[in-house]
Amino acid sequence: MSRNNNKIVPTPAIKRMPYYLAYVKGLKKKGEEYVSSKMIADYMHIDPSQITKDLAYTEIIGKTRVGYQVDSFIEILTDFLSFNITNKAFLVGAGSLGSALLHDKGISNYGLIIDTAFDTDVDKVGKEINNIKIEHMDQFRHLAEEKEVEIGIITTPVDVAQAVADLMVAWGIKAIWNFTPTKLQVHEGIIVEHTTMYSNIASLLNKLKNENNN
Amino acid sequence: MSRNNNKIVPTPAIKRMPYYLAYVKGLKKKGEEYVSSKMIADYMHIDPSQITKDLAYTEIIGKTRVGYQVDSFIEILTDFLSFNITNKAFLVGAGSLGSALLHDKGISNYGLIIDTAFDTDVDKVGKEINNIKIEHMDQFRHLAEEKEVEIGIITTPVDVAQAVADLMVAWGIKAIWNFTPTKLQVHEGIIVEHTTMYSNIASLLNKLKNENNN
Repeated sequence: MSRNNNKIVPTPAIKRMPYYLAYVKGLKKKGEEYVSSKMIADYMHIDPSQITKDLAYTEIIGKTRVGYQVDSFIEILTDFLSFNITNKAFLVGAGSLGSALLHDKGISNYGLIIDTAFDTDVDKVGKEINNIKIEHMDQFRHLAEEKEVEIGIITTPVDVAQAVADLMVAWGIKAIWNFTPTKLQVHEGIIVEHTTMYSNIASLLNKLKNENNN
Repeated sequence: MSRNNNKIVPTPAIKRMPYYLAYVKGLKKKGEEYVSSKMIADYMHIDPSQITKDLAYTEIIGKTRVGYQVDSFIEILTDFLSFNITNKAFLVGAGSLGSALLHDKGISNYGLIIDTAFDTDVDKVGKEINNIKIEHMDQFRHLAEEKEVEIGIITTPVDVAQAVADLMVAWGIKAIWNFTPTKLQVHEGIIVEHTTMYSNIASLLNKLKNENNN
């Protein structure tokens, strides 16, 4: 399948697409054969024109009145999001959150495989979690080169996150997935994605407190 | 310590605060005694006036020229974010991601304790992960009432997420932390926070693909 790889898709559109995919997979399970922009829009609480616009970046083609064919929608969108390719990642920080992520086999359905974990704690080095080996941080550089890994996940304590990011970049990592509440400073061209679990907790607890005080 | 509980803090401000807290805790570790808005602003890459504005919601008081005292900053902000209180949560879906979260002892530092996990899979029910018991979903209602739990975490497969959310709300849950790529529909007054790991993966992989095609 050919694809226009040069088209830059806006990040908000890309971030909506896993929702579309999950929704349409749900329809498939229920035996539906077609899905319309309107159905997806209702589900997402956004305007149908936004769905059409987002999907125009992909090669998903709808038919007038019937909409998108569910099977090809799933196939094309999975491919478009690179979820069917195995992208190897290295994780640094095999502490509590790091170990948790190593246990999550689900992310492989989204194109990401944690190949190796790294830590500096000698009690952890050499062990395995979920069949993923924990290596000493010293091994990161040559293993990244050997395995051609471009994605680094940071689940370290906050105060070493920036130093780990700097090392990752120096050692060839091009994209960092940061789980720590740290604003990483990296040079241009290095990709950083934050998953802000702690901001989510803060927001949830604050809203709950306000709700309970009403 | 008295606190103005009636002041509604904007969500973006609340979501920035765990970063401020993490940063200032880092300074404390390095032996710093004072921190200025400018230092926090530089770290966050935002304007110092934003920091001052955000912190004005709390009772953190700065001194002209020296800034905020590190110890009291940490104490007041931790308290403000309810991170020093134990907020009990129930988790539904002890699959891959759910088990991962159960392994993460770190979230208790952010005020959240997963008290009990729930699943419908009889092979999982009765087991424990990280000392957290997995109960059958049937037990949710009475346990939520007995333990006065108001927070529900959803880590189920996508296609049951909405039904689980509906049950949670019916059974007294007031705030839902949703890890599935599902737009949950809940009635007004129910709090929903999404942690969008899969959107983060999609965005990261897409940017990496674009970068590598340049």
